[in-house]
Amino acid sequence: MATLVLLRHGESVWNAEGLFTGWVDVDLSEKGEEEAVTGGELLLDADIRLDVVHTSVLKRAIRTSNIALDAAEQLWIPVRRSWRLNERHYGALQGKNKAQTREEYGDEQFMTWRRSYDTPPPPIADDDPLSQINDPRYALLPSELIPRTECLADVVDRLLPYWYDAIVPDLAAGRTVLVAAHGNSLRALVKHLDDISDEDIAGLNIPTGIPLLYELDDDFEPLKKGGEYLDPEAAKESIQAVANQGKK
Amino acid sequence: MATLVLLRHGESVWNAEGLFTGWVDVDLSEKGEEEAVTGGELLLDADIRLDVVHTSVLKRAIRTSNIALDAAEQLWIPVRRSWRLNERHYGALQGKNKAQTREEYGDEQFMTWRRSYDTPPPPIADDDPLSQINDPRYALLPSELIPRTECLADVVDRLLPYWYDAIVPDLAAGRTVLVAAHGNSLRALVKHLDDISDEDIAGLNIPTGIPLLYELDDDFEPLKKGGEYLDPEAAKESIQAVANQGKK
Repeated sequence: MATLVLLRHGESVWNAEGLFTGWVDVDLSEKGEEEAVTGGELLLDADIRLDVVHTSVLKRAIRTSNIALDAAEQLWIPVRRSWRLNERHYGALQGKNKAQTREEYGDEQFMTWRRSYDTPPPPIADDDPLSQINDPRYALLPSELIPRTECLADVVDRLLPYWYDAIVPDLAAGRTVLVAAHGNSLRALVKHLDDISDEDIAGLNIPTGIPLLYELDDDFEPLKKGGEYLDPEAAKESIQAVANQGKK
Repeated sequence: MATLVLLRHGESVWNAEGLFTGWVDVDLSEKGEEEAVTGGELLLDADIRLDVVHTSVLKRAIRTSNIALDAAEQLWIPVRRSWRLNERHYGALQGKNKAQTREEYGDEQFMTWRRSYDTPPPPIADDDPLSQINDPRYALLPSELIPRTECLADVVDRLLPYWYDAIVPDLAAGRTVLVAAHGNSLRALVKHLDDISDEDIAGLNIPTGIPLLYELDDDFEPLKKGGEYLDPEAAKESIQAVANQGKK
């Protein structure tokens, strides 16, 4: 049996302003920092001893893991990072206001971009200031690997190699693994873990800052579908708040 | 040619109180956090692109690297940690006041414990509350490997395997490497790099929070002995302050 803990980063500055973020490297807001502390305290209270943390290469996930691990008194554990845990690339929507986008394009198009499994937003141009094509953190990735936009299916495709090649080996070695990542990279992982259909995943929201615990069997499948939030009440409230994003 | 950057953590809470710290996991003081920001800004201003950071498993070095990398806009780089980069274990002196120890044991004994190359302080007892024998971060180390006290020669012995096996391969791969560590683990490394004698190392102090840059040749030896501080003026002042520690 292996233990996997998922942690979605707390509120970022752009979350607070209602902007699509994607691969733009926006920092946590003060509220987001507090959420990370709370997440760490939940880990400490539940007496969860982590052996390794995996994060994306985006600051809001890295700082969430740093702050939470500090609060959990486990800042010293080994760290792995991968772009494959990054948030979904939001294409040309990156930097755009969610409510304005909803107004401009209508509810249906808005929800399609946000929640359809296989319809990506329009791609971002390589010369757009919010493109990541020249970001030094992706310097080792061939240009064709750097997304210009992604739907959730794309995230599943680029995340699963990291799940199989980096996270599963840690779990197989008996390590308790923390994954500190993003709304959509964690939805992609949960879709895989809980075997959620392409249709049903649209209805799944993951709350920020509340560790989600999965006990996995020898095939790395959950003993209990959906896992268990360390603060189930707060998780319920937060899920509702995420679902309301972009509403006026 | 390879580039190595050494960064000694900023002031810790116990530094501020004048206590021997060693392997006790004391946090940075507010001043220490500010020093880490300054260190990161120096890296940013010097346009140094790091490829990987190595830290000890102690919070004050880890937080220094987290804060400095954030200020340097490079929080996303790969991270490696090892107990081999830890501060010198100060044995039974851990938690003791430096000035009081100096008064109690006299200048000569005090300076022998602080600066002699091969005389360790008395060992800490395994049942001492400040012993690390049951610390989960060392759970994978056989008990005989966990120090009860160390002189600088012991630090050189346990640090060099990590230098050769973990840091040199990164340098050999062309990576620019940051090592965020401690006064004595960095003295041990600099002793090796600059080929400083057992006697002369006593006079070497490394300032906190000021990145020390070494360009290395193909044998991983410094092109310029002593390297280069990114803020030479501040380094000179800080070195003097460290030398005065424990004086009344």
